[in-house]
This record gives sequence, C-alpha cells and structure tokens, in this order.
Amino acid sequence: MSQLPKLTFVLGGASSGKSAFAEALVLATGAARVYVATSQVYDDEMAAKVRDHRAARGDGWLTIEEPMDMAKALSQVGTNQVVLLDCASMWLTNHMMAESDLRAATEAFMAALDTCAGRVVVVSNEVGMGIVPDNALARRFRIAQGKLNQRLAEKADLAVFVVAGLPQVLKGQLP
Amino acid sequence: MSQLPKLTFVLGGASSGKSAFAEALVLATGAARVYVATSQVYDDEMAAKVRDHRAARGDGWLTIEEPMDMAKALSQVGTNQVVLLDCASMWLTNHMMAESDLRAATEAFMAALDTCAGRVVVVSNEVGMGIVPDNALARRFRIAQGKLNQRLAEKADLAVFVVAGLPQVLKGQLP
Amino acid sequence: MSQLPKLTFVLGGASSGKSAFAEALVLATGAARVYVATSQVYDDEMAAKVRDHRAARGDGWLTIEEPMDMAKALSQVGTNQVVLLDCASMWLTNHMMAESDLRAATEAFMAALDTCAGRVVVVSNEVGMGIVPDNALARRFRIAQGKLNQRLAEKADLAVFVVAGLPQVLKGQLP
Repeated sequence: MSQLPKLTFVLGGASSGKSAFAEALVLATGAARVYVATSQVYDDEMAAKVRDHRAARGDGWLTIEEPMDMAKALSQVGTNQVVLLDCASMWLTNHMMAESDLRAATEAFMAALDTCAGRVVVVSNEVGMGIVPDNALARRFRIAQGKLNQRLAEKADLAVFVVAGLPQVLKGQLP
Repeated sequence: MSQLPKLTFVLGGASSGKSAFAEALVLATGAARVYVATSQVYDDEMAAKVRDHRAARGDGWLTIEEPMDMAKALSQVGTNQVVLLDCASMWLTNHMMAESDLRAATEAFMAALDTCAGRVVVVSNEVGMGIVPDNALARRFRIAQGKLNQRLAEKADLAVFVVAGLPQVLKGQLP
Repeated sequence: MSQLPKLTFVLGGASSGKSAFAEALVLATGAARVYVATSQVYDDEMAAKVRDHRAARGDGWLTIEEPMDMAKALSQVGTNQVVLLDCASMWLTNHMMAESDLRAATEAFMAALDTCAGRVVVVSNEVGMGIVPDNALARRFRIAQGKLNQRLAEKADLAVFVVAGLPQVLKGQLP
C-alpha cells in the first residue's frame, strides 16, 4: 500500500505507457478506485482505443463517464477514493469541439480538483514537441494543451513525465 | 540575486513555459536585462504571440529587435548585462526563409555567443519528437533545428529542458 | 574501456544526437563492433542520411545490412562483439511497408535480443510527442512505435533518452 498526494499529474506522448503507469499508481494505494472516462467515441479508432484501455485497466473500478464537466464528476468522489482522470487531452478536445469558453472551463476544472474530497491522478498528453502543424485548429489545440499541462503541473504535488513506459519525476516524489 | 553562467540553454516544446522559465532565470540575477527579439511578424497569429510574450515579460527590458544577425545584436551587450535571446527557432526560421547559408549563419551565431561581453540565455524549441512531417521544408527545418539545439546544448554551461513548465536539468546546475 | 550491459536502449527525437551518443557508448567499450543497418534507401533524402551517418560513424565496424529479420542479423554476432542496431524505427517502417504481422515480428525481434551472444545497443525514435497526425498510416505508426519503445525500454538494462545531444538516464546507469 502506498500513499498518493492530493493531486498527481502524469504526462506523456502517444503510446508512452502513461495510462498504465497512472493505473499502477492508483492500484498501489489499495484504496477504492474511480475512473473518470472523458472519451467520446466518434469513430472505430476511438472505440478500439477505449476497448483496449478498459481491458488493460481490469475490474474493480467505479466508472463515471463525463466528457466535459469535471465539477460534476469529481463532486461524486468520496474521501477514501482515488480517482484516475484519463485524460485532460480528451477533456480539452471535447471542449474545443463544443466551442466552450476555454478559460472558464479550465478555471472550473482547476476548482473541481481543489474541492474534490478524494485524491486525483490526472493523465494528459504532451503534444508540443513536434513540428508546427499546418492546420490552424491543431495549432490552437497544441497551445491550449501546453497551457493546460502547465496549470496541472503547477497545481500537482507529484508530476511525472512518462517516456517509453519509464517515469521521469518532474516534481515531488514517487510513493 | 543568483548567478548565471556565460551561456544558458533553455529548450522546450510549444507552450511548455520555456520563455517564462528563461525570463525568471534572468530576473533572478538582478542584473540589467536585454531582450533580443528575433520574431518577424508575418501574420495575426504571430502578432498575438509577440503581444502575449511582451505582456508576460513586463517592463525593465532593453529590447534589441534583430531577426537574423546575432553578431550585431550581441555586440551591443555590456559586461553587466544579462541577455534573453528568444528564440533560436525563430532565428532559424528567418534564415531558412531568407535562404541563408545555414552553416555559415550557425558558425557566426556560435562565435557571437563566445564573444558577447554579457551572459546569455538562449531559448529554443524541441520540434523533433513528433511524426516525420509530410512537407519537405518542415523535414529540413526539423533536422536543422535538432542540429542547432545540439550545438547550443554543447556550448552551454547550463542546459534545461522545460516540460509542462517544470525544468529538467540536462547539464550543469540551476542557480 | 567501459562495460555495457546486455541490452542498452537509446531513444531520441529527430536529429537529437541519439546515433552519435549510441556510437560513443559502443566505441568506449573497446570491443569489436558490429553495425546492423536497417535502412532501405527509397529516395535521395534517405541516401544522404545513410551517407552522413556512415561518415560520422567512421571505420572499424563490421556492417550487417538487414532491414527486417533481426533474428538473422543478431545470430551472426559473437560473444565478444558489441552491436549497434540503428534503428528500431526503420525496422518498424520496413515491416509496416511490407504489411508484416507486427505482433509476430516484434516477438521475433525481442527473442533475437534475448538470444544474441553479444551485447546490443538499440537506437529508436520518439515520435509520439507532437499533435495527432491527419494521416491514418502515420497514426498507426505512432502507436506501434510507442508500443515498441515500451517493449525495448522494459527489456533494456540501461535506457537513455537523448535530448539536444545530452543523455537523460531513464533506467540503469551509464557506464
């Protein structure tokens, strides 16, 4: 049994093993676990990805499906529960597609992390280390994701960058 | 008040917080500060970015606008000044658009760093960790940027990789 | 003379200096060295890259050209030899273009690493830290490369992430 701090931030590239690493952190606490699923299934590729992640995660999770409203999702969590929120990139995508006010949505997300009764592990994607994309929406997403990652990393007690499945601690200490 | 070595290299992805981190390093020295602005404003997106960076940076900077000739920019710097050169990626973009001899331009840049009287912090982008771009110019830029980053990191006394706003020291020690 | 463990994994972005770093690791052992060349030359860009890498590597390497079958390549290696396999990304590209069964090819690759008599240094690309590509094949490659990198990192005794030519140890210890 290991302890996790109030907020853990797990960042990584595509297929970097960040979700598996975050799940292992949650499992090692031995606490009751909650999965906040942010994915909206738009196509077969996404459906396959959701299926793979669910299989990898295994049983024993209470799942809350909530693509956008983290205040609503996290208010359902009790003191003894540990939450895996996977992932902030999907949450951001959903808000950008809905043309939400990103500033307001981000503040609400941050406030929900502050007031959540349980401990939370947030997973997110690093998307800013490639070439500038041709597509204007992709450029906006890349900047918004970078800013969101900075907010989450700043708020987190423990921040981990997962590279090829291996954790690099950016802040705090692994339990 | 903290000391900086002769050359500090700050690398990061898009919206990684690298500029803010580099600015904080310069501010913490308490020395007179110079900003070498390399951006050429081609469009509204760039204008907005320059505006945001200027606002974030605040007052108290002597600004030298110089998109390409770092020998000219850095020869104006005095012994007691600390320079923020933001950024090497824009400098490289400007030279590629001008179809400069990149090898000669790079050697002149490196020599200017050697002979600058003040201490210098150079900011640059990591752009090589995404998929190979379709576009031949983007592929050329990605390779040239990678080689330039290697040169800067090799020459630097302190090299920092900023991920989600958090510094990872690649070389040397943070002041 | 320095020792290398059975398997070393060197990961990095494009033009990150990962090949030069891996070569230096191999050279420092003082052992007889073998280069497993995985590149298939499709165009002039690739031809130039192969030429540059060969020139940088210098003499004194026994070269095995083998784009796909690592069991065949690595079975030719003796106990006192150190292998530089550059790179896993090209190997993956070759298999994807040949529409191989990636699962079977990966298992054969992993088994060949286990049974190789010599020590091996595998170089690979990080390609998952940019924006999601538009192109479906690029998305498939990005996921397959991420999974392959996780496998190699897990199996390796020493795993290094090269950023701007500077090594960050992910696992194990530099010799």
